[in-house]
Amino acid sequence: MSLVGRDLVSLLDFEKPELESIFRTADRMQHSTRKCGTQLKNYVLATIFFEPSTRTRLSFETAMHRLGGSVIGFAEPSVSSVAKGETLADTIRMVESYADAVLLRHKIEGSAKFAAEIAEVPILNGGDGSQHHPSQTLTDLYTIRKEFGKIDGCNLMLMGDLQHTRSASSLAYGLAHYKDITLSLVSPENLRMRPEVTDHLNRNGVKFTEGEDSSEYIDEANVIYVTRLQKERFPDSKQAEAFKGSYVLTKQMLARAPKNAIVMHHLPRIEEIPIEVDYSPKARYFQQAANGVPIRMAFLYSSLHRFKYRPVKVIQPDSKDSRKCSNVNCISNQPREPIVSSMKETLSKGERVLQCQYCGRYTKL
Amino acid sequence: MSLVGRDLVSLLDFEKPELESIFRTADRMQHSTRKCGTQLKNYVLATIFFEPSTRTRLSFETAMHRLGGSVIGFAEPSVSSVAKGETLADTIRMVESYADAVLLRHKIEGSAKFAAEIAEVPILNGGDGSQHHPSQTLTDLYTIRKEFGKIDGCNLMLMGDLQHTRSASSLAYGLAHYKDITLSLVSPENLRMRPEVTDHLNRNGVKFTEGEDSSEYIDEANVIYVTRLQKERFPDSKQAEAFKGSYVLTKQMLARAPKNAIVMHHLPRIEEIPIEVDYSPKARYFQQAANGVPIRMAFLYSSLHRFKYRPVKVIQPDSKDSRKCSNVNCISNQPREPIVSSMKETLSKGERVLQCQYCGRYTKL
Amino acid sequence: MSLVGRDLVSLLDFEKPELESIFRTADRMQHSTRKCGTQLKNYVLATIFFEPSTRTRLSFETAMHRLGGSVIGFAEPSVSSVAKGETLADTIRMVESYADAVLLRHKIEGSAKFAAEIAEVPILNGGDGSQHHPSQTLTDLYTIRKEFGKIDGCNLMLMGDLQHTRSASSLAYGLAHYKDITLSLVSPENLRMRPEVTDHLNRNGVKFTEGEDSSEYIDEANVIYVTRLQKERFPDSKQAEAFKGSYVLTKQMLARAPKNAIVMHHLPRIEEIPIEVDYSPKARYFQQAANGVPIRMAFLYSSLHRFKYRPVKVIQPDSKDSRKCSNVNCISNQPREPIVSSMKETLSKGERVLQCQYCGRYTKL
Repeated sequence: MSLVGRDLVSLLDFEKPELESIFRTADRMQHSTRKCGTQLKNYVLATIFFEPSTRTRLSFETAMHRLGGSVIGFAEPSVSSVAKGETLADTIRMVESYADAVLLRHKIEGSAKFAAEIAEVPILNGGDGSQHHPSQTLTDLYTIRKEFGKIDGCNLMLMGDLQHTRSASSLAYGLAHYKDITLSLVSPENLRMRPEVTDHLNRNGVKFTEGEDSSEYIDEANVIYVTRLQKERFPDSKQAEAFKGSYVLTKQMLARAPKNAIVMHHLPRIEEIPIEVDYSPKARYFQQAANGVPIRMAFLYSSLHRFKYRPVKVIQPDSKDSRKCSNVNCISNQPREPIVSSMKETLSKGERVLQCQYCGRYTKL
Repeated sequence: MSLVGRDLVSLLDFEKPELESIFRTADRMQHSTRKCGTQLKNYVLATIFFEPSTRTRLSFETAMHRLGGSVIGFAEPSVSSVAKGETLADTIRMVESYADAVLLRHKIEGSAKFAAEIAEVPILNGGDGSQHHPSQTLTDLYTIRKEFGKIDGCNLMLMGDLQHTRSASSLAYGLAHYKDITLSLVSPENLRMRPEVTDHLNRNGVKFTEGEDSSEYIDEANVIYVTRLQKERFPDSKQAEAFKGSYVLTKQMLARAPKNAIVMHHLPRIEEIPIEVDYSPKARYFQQAANGVPIRMAFLYSSLHRFKYRPVKVIQPDSKDSRKCSNVNCISNQPREPIVSSMKETLSKGERVLQCQYCGRYTKL
Repeated sequence: MSLVGRDLVSLLDFEKPELESIFRTADRMQHSTRKCGTQLKNYVLATIFFEPSTRTRLSFETAMHRLGGSVIGFAEPSVSSVAKGETLADTIRMVESYADAVLLRHKIEGSAKFAAEIAEVPILNGGDGSQHHPSQTLTDLYTIRKEFGKIDGCNLMLMGDLQHTRSASSLAYGLAHYKDITLSLVSPENLRMRPEVTDHLNRNGVKFTEGEDSSEYIDEANVIYVTRLQKERFPDSKQAEAFKGSYVLTKQMLARAPKNAIVMHHLPRIEEIPIEVDYSPKARYFQQAANGVPIRMAFLYSSLHRFKYRPVKVIQPDSKDSRKCSNVNCISNQPREPIVSSMKETLSKGERVLQCQYCGRYTKL
């Protein structure tokens, strides 16, 4: 199962055996996280962050260092040439000539997919808007697999801001690779999982229900996955205020969950998990964060070791598709990027819609 | 004298033979600062800075690299998850799962002590508020030891903003381990060393005098330690303005010091040492800065090499002490941190007071 | 041809055989940019950036990592002690005690030259104001040499904001080392190359013409070097607006250039090269950027490998030259720096003027 030279753009790009291969490699890495490694000696990872990050950036950096590699990059665009008005395409082309892989976080959706099209080195998506966060999802799936031995057959409850949390939609795409999943999507009516995600679940035979009351689902859940209100994704921060305090996992509520249930969270958590829950034997969010190092070591090793540059598709920016994506935060709507928008017709709840190949979102026909 | 797995929180935590062990290791490191080292190969130090720093951060980073190790971290909280509202406790728990040691600088006093209680890996205090700055003090004591062969018997004059300068209070705690110290504390009346520090000096038999005029003490001083006005620690920057220009060490004043006296400064210096003093053979502040590398190499090597994770004390956040610390900048007054405040009664100038175990400050009974 | 311990302050400091030596070393490095290197193992490069940078900082960092070395530093002054009011001199003295070389970018002209005078380790100029950018010029000359086999005899057209673009003046200084150069300087009347640069070209026998219309020169050009409008160097950003859109290299214009002509740009480019030009076989700006890694590896290796500390000249700050440089952005006009201004008389267009040895600019007698 070779993953040499592979991008990490979204969970949609992988097959189940490939995921298993990454998890087995992570098991090996776990036993040597502090031991000497030289597998990626003199390899350089570039980390390009257009949005703040601690966990994703630092765990990738540690993963690189544990394997003997090095890291360059910037943690905020103001200190880089981006401040001078450079396009993402130019930034990627420049940075890839300095590095063996590029880790990118951007608020613009589809940015990592676009970067992967133009780059000769593997692109690692450190999160793009509200869509994908694949290294988080690999960590999440790996954590579930470690706790229960397998992911097939799991009962998961996802609660919180499911509309804006990329860790939630990314996990949903990941779970679609597994069998007999039962998924409860608990959120305020206005913060439900987006239709392109639930349509994908339907197409892949994942049983899911949507609701607003976690107490209807917690009794049966093996995994209770709590998410943070993504204030920064709301068009207006006052709108976010309205949801503050809803979907908190209290100690009392947790008491109703099965004995072997586990609590997960992508972190940072603010108030949605009170501190007292930390002392419950069900809490797994800090172990989950720690699993981020071996899983990222596994992917970096699998993709970079023995990688040679790949041929790159030449983009013809002239052949613009006249059908535009309606998502203003989509990479295809950034006027100066050399991009070919590519809308495809698909069905959603019986209706024909256009789906953007970059951000995945629907646009009415 | 094993220091394996030791935190570097404050000088209060060490015994004199341990300090000597660090200094002897630093002597060995000094001779090989540019030679290849692999002692900490694949070890990762996380540097977490909530306040700006150059010297402390860069010298720790160099120390790590000289020993073959790597560094991750952030230089300002705005680029990290802290911007999203994460507690210090959560940040520490996350970061320690990525690193073998954590270097922390924070304006909140007691933050490093608190971090050391919850972390499984060594915590290195890069400065907490106006209290401790132990790696600076190790550097300072090491510099004195190199110049005079020993620290016992030294006559030191500390001048400037002794109330807010953590390098000053930290040095006082360090000197309390030595014999026959003569200490002159020269500062404006309103910027004197805080009582918990002078009480500690008294309890440990350090002879000290407090005054406002440096010319009374400079004739006898072996070490003239100048400090910077810590504008950022004043509640109001206008208050700081009032002291501007006081306690400048002029060339004329320095001429009165003994021939073998040395001038030290924690740096950066602004106006308190004029540039003309740089050309005096007494100036040692740049050598002092340079000593920061071997001393930090020595501590990193002593603490991390062969270190295995230690068991962690589980904090019971419910058992809050009802007696609160009066220092608003104390970690025990941060409402969302899972902390057990712990006030202890002690005597100060014959009066009974409460002393906070985190920030060390007194609160009236 | 030994370059051990050499600074990289400006192209004025090198002889042609030294440049050739760097290029030959870069050829060797090019073949091993991704292979393991340990030549600079445990060496530390400090990167001190007072202005934003991506390309210069990241390519130097990668160069260091490819050679097995490490990097410390800061990407913006706000996170460092400079925020507390430290002088450049003090910052350099401190940082050089932590590192084997210092890479400095500063808007103040002459800052790198000044730093090289006071530092015991090599200073690498990452760009100072509108004057020098030597690592960019080495990259540019190396790119021309790779494309044409030699630099002597080349016909170059430089177009855009030649007054403020340090890559342009630095390249002019570099070209002055070569024979039979034909140089067209195309810019708006008000943004012409500064007189100290054109005087240097004249003194070194470089044939150059100045004009406003690129179509007069493009037919004969081997190299078309496009520059970006340096908005941040204008005293007033509205002035910069007036020049927006002028000196764009369109596809139509490029069609008139000779078949083997190449297009270069220091990057980032904004609008002065439209995206459609990227698909022309003449475009070389991304390869040019990529050449920045082997050329910087070559210089770092040549300067640092086997380097021992050099003796430092002691500056006498008292002997201030009474003749002051008229450039407010010159290091000699920073009041707190321990600097000896040194103005020398020279001739410009038959008139006697004073030239500053730091920033190179003229002052009227």
